[in-house]
Amino acid sequence: MDVTIAIDCMGGDHGPSVTLPAACEFLRADPDVKLVLVGLPEIFTGAIASELASFGARVRIQHASEVISMDEAPAIAMRVKKDSSMRVAIDLVKRGEAQACISAGNTGALMAVSRFVLKTLPGIDRPAIVQSLPTAKNSTYMLDLGANVDCTPEHLLQFGIMGAMLVEALEHRERPEVGLLNIGEEEIKGNEIVKQAAELLRGSGLNFIGNIEGNSIYKGVCDVIVCDGFVGNVALKASEGLGTMLASFLKEEFQRNWLTRLCALPALPIIKRFRRRADHRRYNGAVLLGLRGVVVKSHGSADIFAFGQALRRSAEAARNRLIERIERRMIEYTKTHAPEPQVLQAATQALRTA
Amino acid sequence: MDVTIAIDCMGGDHGPSVTLPAACEFLRADPDVKLVLVGLPEIFTGAIASELASFGARVRIQHASEVISMDEAPAIAMRVKKDSSMRVAIDLVKRGEAQACISAGNTGALMAVSRFVLKTLPGIDRPAIVQSLPTAKNSTYMLDLGANVDCTPEHLLQFGIMGAMLVEALEHRERPEVGLLNIGEEEIKGNEIVKQAAELLRGSGLNFIGNIEGNSIYKGVCDVIVCDGFVGNVALKASEGLGTMLASFLKEEFQRNWLTRLCALPALPIIKRFRRRADHRRYNGAVLLGLRGVVVKSHGSADIFAFGQALRRSAEAARNRLIERIERRMIEYTKTHAPEPQVLQAATQALRTA
Repeated sequence: MDVTIAIDCMGGDHGPSVTLPAACEFLRADPDVKLVLVGLPEIFTGAIASELASFGARVRIQHASEVISMDEAPAIAMRVKKDSSMRVAIDLVKRGEAQACISAGNTGALMAVSRFVLKTLPGIDRPAIVQSLPTAKNSTYMLDLGANVDCTPEHLLQFGIMGAMLVEALEHRERPEVGLLNIGEEEIKGNEIVKQAAELLRGSGLNFIGNIEGNSIYKGVCDVIVCDGFVGNVALKASEGLGTMLASFLKEEFQRNWLTRLCALPALPIIKRFRRRADHRRYNGAVLLGLRGVVVKSHGSADIFAFGQALRRSAEAARNRLIERIERRMIEYTKTHAPEPQVLQAATQALRTA
Repeated sequence: MDVTIAIDCMGGDHGPSVTLPAACEFLRADPDVKLVLVGLPEIFTGAIASELASFGARVRIQHASEVISMDEAPAIAMRVKKDSSMRVAIDLVKRGEAQACISAGNTGALMAVSRFVLKTLPGIDRPAIVQSLPTAKNSTYMLDLGANVDCTPEHLLQFGIMGAMLVEALEHRERPEVGLLNIGEEEIKGNEIVKQAAELLRGSGLNFIGNIEGNSIYKGVCDVIVCDGFVGNVALKASEGLGTMLASFLKEEFQRNWLTRLCALPALPIIKRFRRRADHRRYNGAVLLGLRGVVVKSHGSADIFAFGQALRRSAEAARNRLIERIERRMIEYTKTHAPEPQVLQAATQALRTA
């Protein structure tokens, strides 16, 4: 199916030196995709320009006069830089000229501008950041990963619904299993917010499997893991940090002296396959869920391979009508649960005054 | 220095088959240590009884008639089982007959009973669970790891003070560096509680280095990492889960077929050294901080080596007067910050009503 993706070519630690070659590779790999490349005029010159030209009408170049830096305040990005490459890419989605946009830039700015331009879907209070993680079995999608640091039970429920729809769209799994991240599997565990969220999820019509603990994230016990953005962000980054440390330990041990280097030689292909399997670049491409459009965030440090993975994901989400799935599901939920919010609000109120 | 440790010999997945051999090894390794072994009478029979007897007056056996199971509700453990091995071990600390106690049993029960029997130190609202983690440089201590799921800024401050005192006592590091776990390094990041906690820590006289992100936990950027128990528990368990998954990936790749097994042979000693370096058993022994006595929690699945590490830690904490250090520091803090709590309370109140 034909799909058009808008790329913020300036974002990320490496900017166009990664985004443009990744775009070319993606055009070769997926003949039904079209791209709108957004960036400062000077990046579309030289060899890469001729390569892009070879794709003919499948590539459109759209100039932008500004760039949002990685440490720019989201408010400035949103209010001042109205012709930034990021903003122009998002505007293309808003106008329907692209079905998805992608940026490796500043996450806070991407969230703020996307929310401002695209708005949230009906029934969704706050967008969330979701990403897939490798597990012993398959992969799992965790959200929120840092967009919301103070979530109510209702927010967590919305995350569950959005996450389930994403897994349907990207992984084609029917009735994805949803778990709630907690500090114990028993229902009595956790804080009040998590306990109430469990109640809501149980009554949501989703395939809710209950609480899961941190050590189950990588076991593949469910397709979607719901959590507060603070918790999710720390868990994801702690995992990244541990992975980096273990990789450097392994490297150090193999490179300790000439003997260990020699012994390592025959094992190199095995180590390589291990690294490929645990390679976090394969999982690059977080989705900003809950907006009226597909917005994908690549890791800032992504290389060409990693950025390509995020591109594939954005095309997949657009082709499988992610936004419509979420919208439809939210409408269904609201219809069947019409009286619930008031009941819950009363209950919450009662709990607070108790 | 002479020190007496009370051991709940019944706790953990393996009970006396781990705790008793570990006790014997510890007695051999540390000639200045005395142990009080608490358990059902029938475990002190056979070969292990003769081995224990060979240590003479250094070992005292104390019978208990009950055992707290791993899934027992803490309230039952506390109110009903007054002659459990766990409770008797804690009572020994209370009466001054032991300077520390250790259990591999039910964490919730250990916390509840310890708190009930020993009480918290002056100025400490809630005890916290702290454990050391390996880092690229050294090791770091993170707290709380699950005792408190709703922390106020004041609780986080107390965790910082207790953690710093623990690092002084166990690692002999002067003015340990304290970091606050957050979702960004900038001061504006995080929720209100974390922002206020940062303020308190900055004015506490501790060597506070500011916010740290999840990926810095394993970099060794500071000696103590302060966080809410929910966040800490999830981060710790997510790390455990990731470590387990990566280890099984590595094993699977090496055992894929006879060729990979053959290639792996020369690399085995290297892999072994890598495993030793990343071995979580070395870090076994969480401390329940903030109580009027040293209480150490071993991992339930600990083997003899791991339980021995926790025993060493409990002796070290008792010898280096952990409790007095925390007590002294809390008194100093309260003296120098006498007006602060009211100011803060007013500020907190103002924020809440705003």
